[in-house]
Amino acid sequence: MRGAVIYAPGDVRFENLDDPKIINPTDAIIRTVATCVCGSDLWPYRGAEPIGDPHPMGHEYVGVVEEVGSEVANVRPGQFVVGSFATSDNSCANCLNGWQSSCLHREFMSTCQADYVRIPNAHGTLVATDEHPDAELVPSLLAVSDVMGTGWYAAVAAEVKPGSTAVVVGDGAVGLCGVIAAKELGAERIITMSRHESRQKLAREFGATDIIAERGDAGVARVKDLTGGIGADSVLECVGTSEAMRQALHSARPGGNVGFVGVPHEVAIDGEELFFSHVGLRGGPAPVRRHLPDLIDRVLTGRINPGKVFDLTLPLDQVAEGYRAMDERRAVKALLKP
Amino acid sequence: MRGAVIYAPGDVRFENLDDPKIINPTDAIIRTVATCVCGSDLWPYRGAEPIGDPHPMGHEYVGVVEEVGSEVANVRPGQFVVGSFATSDNSCANCLNGWQSSCLHREFMSTCQADYVRIPNAHGTLVATDEHPDAELVPSLLAVSDVMGTGWYAAVAAEVKPGSTAVVVGDGAVGLCGVIAAKELGAERIITMSRHESRQKLAREFGATDIIAERGDAGVARVKDLTGGIGADSVLECVGTSEAMRQALHSARPGGNVGFVGVPHEVAIDGEELFFSHVGLRGGPAPVRRHLPDLIDRVLTGRINPGKVFDLTLPLDQVAEGYRAMDERRAVKALLKP
Repeated sequence: MRGAVIYAPGDVRFENLDDPKIINPTDAIIRTVATCVCGSDLWPYRGAEPIGDPHPMGHEYVGVVEEVGSEVANVRPGQFVVGSFATSDNSCANCLNGWQSSCLHREFMSTCQADYVRIPNAHGTLVATDEHPDAELVPSLLAVSDVMGTGWYAAVAAEVKPGSTAVVVGDGAVGLCGVIAAKELGAERIITMSRHESRQKLAREFGATDIIAERGDAGVARVKDLTGGIGADSVLECVGTSEAMRQALHSARPGGNVGFVGVPHEVAIDGEELFFSHVGLRGGPAPVRRHLPDLIDRVLTGRINPGKVFDLTLPLDQVAEGYRAMDERRAVKALLKP
Repeated sequence: MRGAVIYAPGDVRFENLDDPKIINPTDAIIRTVATCVCGSDLWPYRGAEPIGDPHPMGHEYVGVVEEVGSEVANVRPGQFVVGSFATSDNSCANCLNGWQSSCLHREFMSTCQADYVRIPNAHGTLVATDEHPDAELVPSLLAVSDVMGTGWYAAVAAEVKPGSTAVVVGDGAVGLCGVIAAKELGAERIITMSRHESRQKLAREFGATDIIAERGDAGVARVKDLTGGIGADSVLECVGTSEAMRQALHSARPGGNVGFVGVPHEVAIDGEELFFSHVGLRGGPAPVRRHLPDLIDRVLTGRINPGKVFDLTLPLDQVAEGYRAMDERRAVKALLKP
């Protein structure tokens, strides 16, 4: 089979690789129907994370089951399945508490920009749809496996409630999905911080009621203007930089909540500042598996259409162009079709 | 009148001071019935916080109303009242959200180790009891104005729920009150981290089911042993040091919550570590006013007896000895009687 391998910053190649095989009885092999490039893939691509030896890339996927290990009973060959970037047995104490992305047997996916993928913990990770979905639903189902699942979790962690005011920091694919989530969870006012016109437009389409183009203290001041001077009930931090975290914490009202889902890069939170802010803070890799049945249902019934975040579709063998387009901000998110 | 004044680390004096006067129409003057020394008073006393010019001390109080400003309608002269270390108008947006300790007109109390005290925002801060309480209830009502209110908030911020497991980091007066709160909120298992025998005993009396004497990683390992390897649902951080915060964060399970109420001193939280922990974190000065009616009721009906944290009672003019005894750990908390 063939798949993407990163060699160095800016150097992603599409190569011949060994076919994946069942290693553990809880594994499955899927034939990839769609995969994509994640904002987090850009960290090593931009040299902001060490790469080490050349290695495969990709952790978002939908596909058709080819083969299952002897202990995988929940899905069978031929079924269309959606998974998560973090695999889980869905039966350990953390999974039973709803924190499948902290599963005691968790393995992060990292080989999904390929024709075929081995899914560890397939029994607790994959969810099959009743039928093979129509082609136009595939992008949204793919989104559920990471960006939509992550945006959803950001809104849940930020405790978005009906009638509340939510701020979304970050207008990448996760932030845009966060807008969808805030809307679905009943936020009355959804303020998106964005300075890119096409993303602002999509944010509005997804439910944003206000757009703030300013950043830093000026952006926070605008949030305060829009929230009676005290800040927002819920803030979704969907970037992962120190500035974005600062902006998020300062945008929340006392007693409000920040959900942070951008993997933090050199972010330190001052204890005293957090203390006096009265803001609640929770982050982490999204427990996508917890939300998967609900999100798949919302996609299949047409309630949400997160697949719109894909503004570039490429054949899988042009994966390198997908990275380039996202790095150069020519695309929000690139979908790849084997 | 007379009151405590701090001059330098280790130097607290009891001196003649001007009688307090009504300055704003929302002020009240109370005659102090009981006040005390707070663990946080020890920070400047130990030279860990700058003192600047000599200034009065104390922020915990119960008393009898002497005089009220023209806009104070909720209490009247002669009534016994309980307040909070943070004053609030109880009507601004933050107060209405339940975050009175972030009141837009908040003033922190700082002159309470004295015969008489001016209470700013008295209209939104003071709660009167129906009758003057029996003398033996006074220590518990005093505790409600800070340590019990703070321990309660720590448990609320840590989202203690019926049947849950709670860990209390810190065996000072706030930590001990945190045990009471965790018990009242229904925690089934309450693990207190303490290495002082007398405090362990009081913790058990208040409802602790397990005591851990180890600190740091060894303490965390013991918590894991007692919680099926994953950590506690709720952790109350009642110290404010970097080590205590670290211990608290590492003791919580993925998806668990840390409520932190010790004012953080040089505490920095690593964003990436917090992210992957999946732990929710909320701190701050306790919104005592939110919980005051409920806590006063629990004291008056005998459900809780937080006054037991006072293991030393002194005449107010011996306030300096109160500081010394707490600094030298001869006392958990010193009550002062004018």
